[in-house]
Amino acid sequence: MSTPTSRIALRPEDEARVKESGKLSKQLNRLQETLSRIRSAPPAGHARNRKELEAALTKAQTAMETSLSIPDTDTQTSRTQRKELKRLCQSLEVLDQQNRFSDVINKRLPKKGIYIGIDLGGTNAQVAAVSSRGETLASKKVAVAGIEDPEEVTSLLASEVQLLVSETGGKWKQVVGLGIGAAGTIDLEEGVVIFAPNLNWRDVPARSMLETKLKIPVTLDNDVNVGTLGEWALGAGRGYQTIVGIFWGTGIGGGLIVNGELIRGANGMAAEVGHMVVDPRGPKCGCGNIGCMESIAGRRSIARDIRSAIRAGEATIITELVGKNPKVIRSGDLREAVKQRDKVALRVLKNAAAAVGLGMANIANLVDPDAFIIGGGVVEALGEWIVEESTEAAKKDIISVDQRQLTVLPAMIGDNAGALGGAILAMRMGE
Amino acid sequence: MSTPTSRIALRPEDEARVKESGKLSKQLNRLQETLSRIRSAPPAGHARNRKELEAALTKAQTAMETSLSIPDTDTQTSRTQRKELKRLCQSLEVLDQQNRFSDVINKRLPKKGIYIGIDLGGTNAQVAAVSSRGETLASKKVAVAGIEDPEEVTSLLASEVQLLVSETGGKWKQVVGLGIGAAGTIDLEEGVVIFAPNLNWRDVPARSMLETKLKIPVTLDNDVNVGTLGEWALGAGRGYQTIVGIFWGTGIGGGLIVNGELIRGANGMAAEVGHMVVDPRGPKCGCGNIGCMESIAGRRSIARDIRSAIRAGEATIITELVGKNPKVIRSGDLREAVKQRDKVALRVLKNAAAAVGLGMANIANLVDPDAFIIGGGVVEALGEWIVEESTEAAKKDIISVDQRQLTVLPAMIGDNAGALGGAILAMRMGE
Repeated sequence: MSTPTSRIALRPEDEARVKESGKLSKQLNRLQETLSRIRSAPPAGHARNRKELEAALTKAQTAMETSLSIPDTDTQTSRTQRKELKRLCQSLEVLDQQNRFSDVINKRLPKKGIYIGIDLGGTNAQVAAVSSRGETLASKKVAVAGIEDPEEVTSLLASEVQLLVSETGGKWKQVVGLGIGAAGTIDLEEGVVIFAPNLNWRDVPARSMLETKLKIPVTLDNDVNVGTLGEWALGAGRGYQTIVGIFWGTGIGGGLIVNGELIRGANGMAAEVGHMVVDPRGPKCGCGNIGCMESIAGRRSIARDIRSAIRAGEATIITELVGKNPKVIRSGDLREAVKQRDKVALRVLKNAAAAVGLGMANIANLVDPDAFIIGGGVVEALGEWIVEESTEAAKKDIISVDQRQLTVLPAMIGDNAGALGGAILAMRMGE
Repeated sequence: MSTPTSRIALRPEDEARVKESGKLSKQLNRLQETLSRIRSAPPAGHARNRKELEAALTKAQTAMETSLSIPDTDTQTSRTQRKELKRLCQSLEVLDQQNRFSDVINKRLPKKGIYIGIDLGGTNAQVAAVSSRGETLASKKVAVAGIEDPEEVTSLLASEVQLLVSETGGKWKQVVGLGIGAAGTIDLEEGVVIFAPNLNWRDVPARSMLETKLKIPVTLDNDVNVGTLGEWALGAGRGYQTIVGIFWGTGIGGGLIVNGELIRGANGMAAEVGHMVVDPRGPKCGCGNIGCMESIAGRRSIARDIRSAIRAGEATIITELVGKNPKVIRSGDLREAVKQRDKVALRVLKNAAAAVGLGMANIANLVDPDAFIIGGGVVEALGEWIVEESTEAAKKDIISVDQRQLTVLPAMIGDNAGALGGAILAMRMGE
């Protein structure tokens, strides 16, 4: 890591002027407190954040100096400067918070102990044990493909969880709670998986089944909500208060956290971002909507559009990768096609990115979140390229003011987001 | 008011069964507590609410009896029944809360005294004095048209506010604070009207100007945020926790309250509902977006579409009302045209309602609010007809589950929403 090059060192005459101005003075104090906190903190946090921190420090210093060189009357310019300074101080605080887990997660430290999270998919369950300080103690993948009986699946999960805890060197009595996310329709209040197509489950009271087997409190939620919670608490969303998670894979799901609270909605239907309509003349979706984000940009829809290009006789390297009549086009195939600048793949993916971008613009126009976190199979395969394409599209459809920020971040913890989020869910139980 | 016809009177054997079942028993207790609270409450609240209350009581009793006649195993049917019962208990509580102002507004009683609210438009300012119990003590309209100098406008407002307080029989020292909403771009933090086209104001520090003149704390916000706050606390939104306000007039603005908090967004740009894109192939809007809600459904856009029908030679009674080349088509003209079943007006308005409906569906898919509150000039003129048209359109584009509720309510306090909302803003100052 490079040595910090910026220092807040003001000339004595400037210091006097700053002291005279109430608002600037307070901001200066905040900045200095934040600085000393960050400098005394252990070297935790992401390298990316450290870099941002260096950059923010330099910017803050410039802003402060510019601000001092302008007489403090109430002109648009000085207001803009003060706001720029304030914004920079806030980003410093965000970066600072990313090192302080308890504040972010719960406004207080969770009860000491071990928390278990499970992300239950149709093929695998990801299981994690997390400390009350947010450290991942252990995690593993458990194959569940082919086991349909809910009794068998929950028994397997229960024994794997117990094994995992012993692997951490911890004792079972240290375990405070378990949070589990499942892909499907969930009855949050009753803790029941109403329908999970990938598991072929209907009306499975998963919460009480696990509570009976493990004798610890269990909470059950939708996998995308749980994944968003994981990215917010331990991934790309650390330190933000209002975020929108978008998980872009075969389908497109989402999660919404407003002022630190996971929003479930009056009908438990909040954050169905993939089914927001972006083109009323678009294709029909399985959900019944016309032209929703998923009907254009979900991997299944991307595959449909590529297949129809193939049928129309267009040349694409996708046929070399998966044959002339591909049933399934995996994210890896898309990555390869983009790498080789395949025209058909690029066109279809740009169209998909435009749909996701328009959806993000609509979300921004309504919620104006601190950040979007985009993850899921398509993003994992295509990386920053697809995030940038979507962001550019979003900027075209957003209602803007000067210096409006649109923060779009790729998800950071990938496969583990659901399991870690499950542990966070357990920490917040009963709030 | 009619005598309540429903009573929760269970047969002894049912009572025993209810007591056996933990969940039902708790719900019964909640219901009975709510009932006795409502019965002992003063006869405040709206007649509409009282009627709803009677209906909800009857339904709750039926649901409870049905629920008792089904063995309490964990079947889909019994779960549905329990949820129906719970939902009904919740609506009882909502109705109950609508009589208890302090809980709704602040989770605690605001400081005793008088709160002033101002809704500052280009033609008139609506001014209101509100007690800490939410009662409107006095309100009046003050003409500001033609006075452009901010110094003059704020002086006029200051003296009118003082007059208003003396009209209530109260003393100035009882006034705790003032909240003001202005139509335009607002710098919330600095309390400055950056640009208000209707007032022809640029960079006016309205907050500090009023504070200097009145010597009380002042808070300034966007008029639509303030109007939403008014409808939430004292109008159609009473008792709900998460609502979306849509003000449908010349333009379309909105407000978003999530879990009782007004959401302003990372850039102060939240709740720009009118500029969410509903048709990427639609007309261009003044905001720069293509096919946003306002570009299709704002009154200006409605007038544009009617004018182009007139130019195309279509027969419409609008020409009789406002001439063959109407510059302005007022909401009253639209009402008259709808009353007379004018084909052109109906077609254009249905198209507008479809755009608003699609916008509401997208909002519902993201936030899933307890209720939408729709107000503004177009809704005031066209009434329930346009609310129903929009609601039906929204239902087509919403992702649904069984028994999903979409609550769309016409705004209730009309012109006074902004002024009352301003007073609420003052009550919540410093939170």
